[in-house]
Amino acid sequence: MKSLNPTFSEAVAQSFAKQPIMNLIGARLGLIEPGIVEIVLPFRQDLTQQNGYLHAGVVTTIADSACGYAAFSLMPAGSAVLSVEFKVNLLRPARGESFVARAEVIKAGRTLSVTRADVFAVHEDSERELVATMQGTMICVR
Amino acid sequence: MKSLNPTFSEAVAQSFAKQPIMNLIGARLGLIEPGIVEIVLPFRQDLTQQNGYLHAGVVTTIADSACGYAAFSLMPAGSAVLSVEFKVNLLRPARGESFVARAEVIKAGRTLSVTRADVFAVHEDSERELVATMQGTMICVR
Amino acid sequence: MKSLNPTFSEAVAQSFAKQPIMNLIGARLGLIEPGIVEIVLPFRQDLTQQNGYLHAGVVTTIADSACGYAAFSLMPAGSAVLSVEFKVNLLRPARGESFVARAEVIKAGRTLSVTRADVFAVHEDSERELVATMQGTMICVR
Amino acid sequence: MKSLNPTFSEAVAQSFAKQPIMNLIGARLGLIEPGIVEIVLPFRQDLTQQNGYLHAGVVTTIADSACGYAAFSLMPAGSAVLSVEFKVNLLRPARGESFVARAEVIKAGRTLSVTRADVFAVHEDSERELVATMQGTMICVR
Repeated sequence: MKSLNPTFSEAVAQSFAKQPIMNLIGARLGLIEPGIVEIVLPFRQDLTQQNGYLHAGVVTTIADSACGYAAFSLMPAGSAVLSVEFKVNLLRPARGESFVARAEVIKAGRTLSVTRADVFAVHEDSERELVATMQGTMICVR
Repeated sequence: MKSLNPTFSEAVAQSFAKQPIMNLIGARLGLIEPGIVEIVLPFRQDLTQQNGYLHAGVVTTIADSACGYAAFSLMPAGSAVLSVEFKVNLLRPARGESFVARAEVIKAGRTLSVTRADVFAVHEDSERELVATMQGTMICVR
Repeated sequence: MKSLNPTFSEAVAQSFAKQPIMNLIGARLGLIEPGIVEIVLPFRQDLTQQNGYLHAGVVTTIADSACGYAAFSLMPAGSAVLSVEFKVNLLRPARGESFVARAEVIKAGRTLSVTRADVFAVHEDSERELVATMQGTMICVR
Repeated sequence: MKSLNPTFSEAVAQSFAKQPIMNLIGARLGLIEPGIVEIVLPFRQDLTQQNGYLHAGVVTTIADSACGYAAFSLMPAGSAVLSVEFKVNLLRPARGESFVARAEVIKAGRTLSVTRADVFAVHEDSERELVATMQGTMICVR
C-alpha cells in the first residue's frame, strides 16, 4: 500500500506518544509500515481479569490503537483518525510474556477505512499464539 | 429476570475484586441486579487517547466487564464467565466527569448469553450522554 | 426523533419498492416513523436453512433494510443510504408464521448513523419471540 | 487443518442441498477443503437493492453459509452447525457477474469455531474485487 503522507511514520509515533493510556499499560509501538502497524505490550499482572489472563478490554486497547494507526498511516498529512466501531473475537486465554497487536488495512477509503488486527501472545521457547482478532472501521477527520 | 444463584450479588462482587485491571483504571461496581450490572469509572487523564477522550479500549474494558457480570449474575453458583466476542460502536467523543457502563442480558442461555451494554458520560449540571454501545456474547464455564 | 425530510415516509416507501430482493423473499414495509422502520416477512419454506428455520442471511436481509430505512427516514431529502457494517446475534431458531424486523436509530449523524434492529418471530396464539438482534452503521450519501 | 470427519466433503454437500434458500438465490458450492469452503453466486437482478447492487443481506447469506460449512467441515461426523453471530463490513458496491464467498476457520474449537469469509465480485476481463468481509462464530451441536 502507498501512503498519502511522506512522514507517516513520524505522524504515527507523534500521535501514539500523545495517548496517555499506552503509557499507563506499558504499550509501545513496534513495526510501522504503510497500512500496517504493530503495538507491543509486555504482560503485567495489573492488566488482568479474574483468571489472571490479560483483560479483553486491554487486548482491545492495543488492537484498536493498532487499527487506528494502520488506517492513519495511509491518510493525508494533517488528518486525524477516530474509531467508528470494532468487533473482537477472543480465541484463547490471553496469557504470555508479552502480546503483539498487528493491524492492517483491508480497505482504505477517503472517509472510512476498514482494518483488521490479530493479537498474539508471545511465549519464551514456543511459537506465538493468536489470542484475539478484531475487525473494525476507522474514520478520517480533517 | 431470575438468577440461578441466590448469592449472585456477592459472587459478582468477589469476582470483580479479583480483576486487577479494574483497580488500575479506578473502576468500581455500581448496580447489581439479576441480569443487569453497572460499572462506574471516574475520568482520569491517564486513560485517554490523543484527543483527551477516554480511549475506546477503556470504554470497552468497563462495557465488557459489565456484560460479563450481567451474564454471570444469572448463572448457577460455581460457574465462571468468559467473553466470546463483542462489538462496540463509538457514538460520541468519550468526555465527561465520569462514565457508567450499564449492561443487561438480552438472552440468557445455558452455555451462551447475549448481552448489551450502553456506556454513558456523566456531566455535572447536564444530562448523561450515550457515548458507546456494545453487543456481545458471554460463555458459562463450569 | 425529528426527520429532516417532510416526505420521509414516501421516500422510504419509494426506495423500498426499488429493492427487488424484497419482492423475491416476500417482505413488505410495516411501520414507518422518524427513526423507526419495521419490515414484515411471512414465513416461506424456500427461505430456510437445513433445519427448516429462516436462514440467518434472510433474517439479516430484513434487519439490514429496516436499519437502512430507519436511518434514511431521518436524512435530508435527496440523500441515499448505504450499509457500512452490521453485526447480528442469532438468539433462537427463527421459526414462526411470520417475522418482523424492527429497527431504530440509536445515534443519527450527518454522515454516519448507528442503528439497532430486533427481529421477532410471530406465532399464532402466543407471544412474539426475539430471534435475532443487529447493531449496525449506515452512511448518508448525498 | 485436519477434519475429524473423513466424509466431510459429502457431509457439507448434503447439508448444503438441504438449504432451500441457496436454491432460491441460485447459489452453489465451490471449493470444499478442511476448514475452507467457497460458495458461488451468479448475479441476478432480483437479488439487488435500490441501486442495483447485490443486497447486503444476500452477500451475508452466502458468507454465513460458507462460514458455517467451513466450521462444519472440521467437526466430528454426526454434528450439526448453527450460526451464533457474525459481523460484516461492506467494502465496495457489490456489482459483478458473479460473487464468491470464501470462508476459512480461524480457530476450531470443540463447541465454538471462529471463522472469516471474504466475498469477492468476479468481473469478466478484470481482477476479482473484495466487496465484503465477515467475522463470525459458529457452534457445534451434537
